[in-house]
Amino acid sequence: MGLMDEIELRLLPEDDRKPVPKPENLGFGIHFTDHMFVMDYEEEKGWYDPRIVPYGNFSLDPAAVCLHYGQAIFEGLKAHRGEDGKIRLFRPYENMKRLNRSAHRMCMPSVDEEFLLNAIKQLVKVEERWVPANKGTSLYIRPFMIATEAYLGVRPAKKYILSVILCPVGAYYSEGFNPVKIFVTDKYVRAAKGGVGEAKTAGNYAASLMASEEAKAKGFTQVLWLDAKERRYVEEVGTMNIFFAFEDEIVTPALSGSILPGITRDSVLRLGKKWGLNMVERPITIDEVIEGAQSGALTECFGTGTAAVISPVGSLHYKGIDYVINNGVTGPLSKRLFDEITGLQYGEIEDALGWIETVI
Amino acid sequence: MGLMDEIELRLLPEDDRKPVPKPENLGFGIHFTDHMFVMDYEEEKGWYDPRIVPYGNFSLDPAAVCLHYGQAIFEGLKAHRGEDGKIRLFRPYENMKRLNRSAHRMCMPSVDEEFLLNAIKQLVKVEERWVPANKGTSLYIRPFMIATEAYLGVRPAKKYILSVILCPVGAYYSEGFNPVKIFVTDKYVRAAKGGVGEAKTAGNYAASLMASEEAKAKGFTQVLWLDAKERRYVEEVGTMNIFFAFEDEIVTPALSGSILPGITRDSVLRLGKKWGLNMVERPITIDEVIEGAQSGALTECFGTGTAAVISPVGSLHYKGIDYVINNGVTGPLSKRLFDEITGLQYGEIEDALGWIETVI
Repeated sequence: MGLMDEIELRLLPEDDRKPVPKPENLGFGIHFTDHMFVMDYEEEKGWYDPRIVPYGNFSLDPAAVCLHYGQAIFEGLKAHRGEDGKIRLFRPYENMKRLNRSAHRMCMPSVDEEFLLNAIKQLVKVEERWVPANKGTSLYIRPFMIATEAYLGVRPAKKYILSVILCPVGAYYSEGFNPVKIFVTDKYVRAAKGGVGEAKTAGNYAASLMASEEAKAKGFTQVLWLDAKERRYVEEVGTMNIFFAFEDEIVTPALSGSILPGITRDSVLRLGKKWGLNMVERPITIDEVIEGAQSGALTECFGTGTAAVISPVGSLHYKGIDYVINNGVTGPLSKRLFDEITGLQYGEIEDALGWIETVI
Repeated sequence: MGLMDEIELRLLPEDDRKPVPKPENLGFGIHFTDHMFVMDYEEEKGWYDPRIVPYGNFSLDPAAVCLHYGQAIFEGLKAHRGEDGKIRLFRPYENMKRLNRSAHRMCMPSVDEEFLLNAIKQLVKVEERWVPANKGTSLYIRPFMIATEAYLGVRPAKKYILSVILCPVGAYYSEGFNPVKIFVTDKYVRAAKGGVGEAKTAGNYAASLMASEEAKAKGFTQVLWLDAKERRYVEEVGTMNIFFAFEDEIVTPALSGSILPGITRDSVLRLGKKWGLNMVERPITIDEVIEGAQSGALTECFGTGTAAVISPVGSLHYKGIDYVINNGVTGPLSKRLFDEITGLQYGEIEDALGWIETVI
């Protein structure tokens, strides 16, 4: 591609830059930094005009394909500032690869992974003062691609924008690293095999809203999704993957086509194996989970995702009954994984697996 | 709501208006008119600032929810100009009702149906010169709602735009009213029960792209979707509903939650019943369809939708074999339905069912 050293920089004058919010007021996905990365795509030209420019509105035709037919994908990763002042990314190549897999599934153009990662690093360097320093905070990085062609026929668009925006974030859940209460839905379905559940595409998230809202109205934090076919097999939780720790194995649903292949999921599998744990990817039914919760064989349950890292599950509500897990408190495995991954992210633990990319 | 007479009009000077394309060059969804309708929504204020303004780009925050999480819905209907010069809408209240059903499913605000329909009529009046006169052409009307709040957490947005854009259109398929070749996919799934298949939401269309592209690459016009659970029951075809005419019954898949409740579908059911035909909504397997095609018991097959009205299916390709229907030619029922519906739309047939709304 060779565009790398051609990224145009159009930076705001220092005086026009916004004040950085205090670490305790970050929230999640609310505050955006001063600049963003943008590049354009046309079928005949490929990707062109990569640039880092002041954060500002897109000018989109009302007939832009992304607004009507949802041809849109995204990624999410974080930059962490360690006590040593260094800024690190966690397994960012995995995000680049997944972006391209999502692009393929949604009939969108691929991007040069090396080029995009370098653009992200360059953007993070420009916005260095926005990377918060407190443990538990980070700079959330959101690469996304949208179809911009003005055309109302249903077919893949011929024009796209790829952009990267940044926001300093605190904890994703107000619970922080405390167990969440989960509602198991047998009414709603997130995705079916043969569908787009394994792509990080816009419509999957819109499709999750009503189930989440109904669960929240009943006092639960998130929804546990079951499979579309039998409504028996566990898929994922809210926008996270899920793990079940039994005495002899730690199980996560196998990637079946309808489950998002989470990078934190993969990291947990690899770390567990490294620690000598019996990490198993296989189909697991909600009945097995409930039996385990009742008998105590299920010792821990937790969600994994970029936003929350590890989110311990304190109880599952299924068919009108609450099943408490590990007395509703955070278990030792959840804690160990959280500490290990965040320790790596903040540069406190040696990067033996080569997962860390240092930005500065 | 009482906003009706408050729609602000900001019209282009006559000299700045675009030339109207020739009827033979219309295509579908390419040319947009001079003006559009827009109104805004905020959680605290409800819908406000309804206006008809020059067609022009939206200014959207890069973090707008619709671009990341696909919270977006739309409708599609047409204005037809009859030989009498009058401009008619076909069952537009049904579109308003479905828009609100889609809004509910996608956790979006509802709109006043009467108000929106009047806004559409007012917009069509403003753009009267854009309504083509030739039979087979029409002014396509695209109401749509998108989530515009700049927020990266996954929850329903608190800000929306509702807009209506217009484009003069010719035939949707290059085949015109000629039979299309359909590829039956047992690899891809459009929607599952418990999902959002019955909502007219953006992500459903993005989810259909890869299957369509693969079918097109093999020389087929569209895909026939089977159910997510058993991959046996017929759901819909491309972006249309589907009907199968047997000697003793005319069958369309029952609305199961995963099928779009088409307005043309409903019109065909009602017209058929009025004509004394045995119109049946029930589950129908692909095996039954294939057997019918082989034995000749399946006399006709056709898709129904706003864009194409009636689209005769000349053959179905399933598991490597082509099954020709009615010798690959348009059957009498398809023809009769097409003539009746377009006759009503163009004001050539008396509107006995009260389906027509005259704009001018």
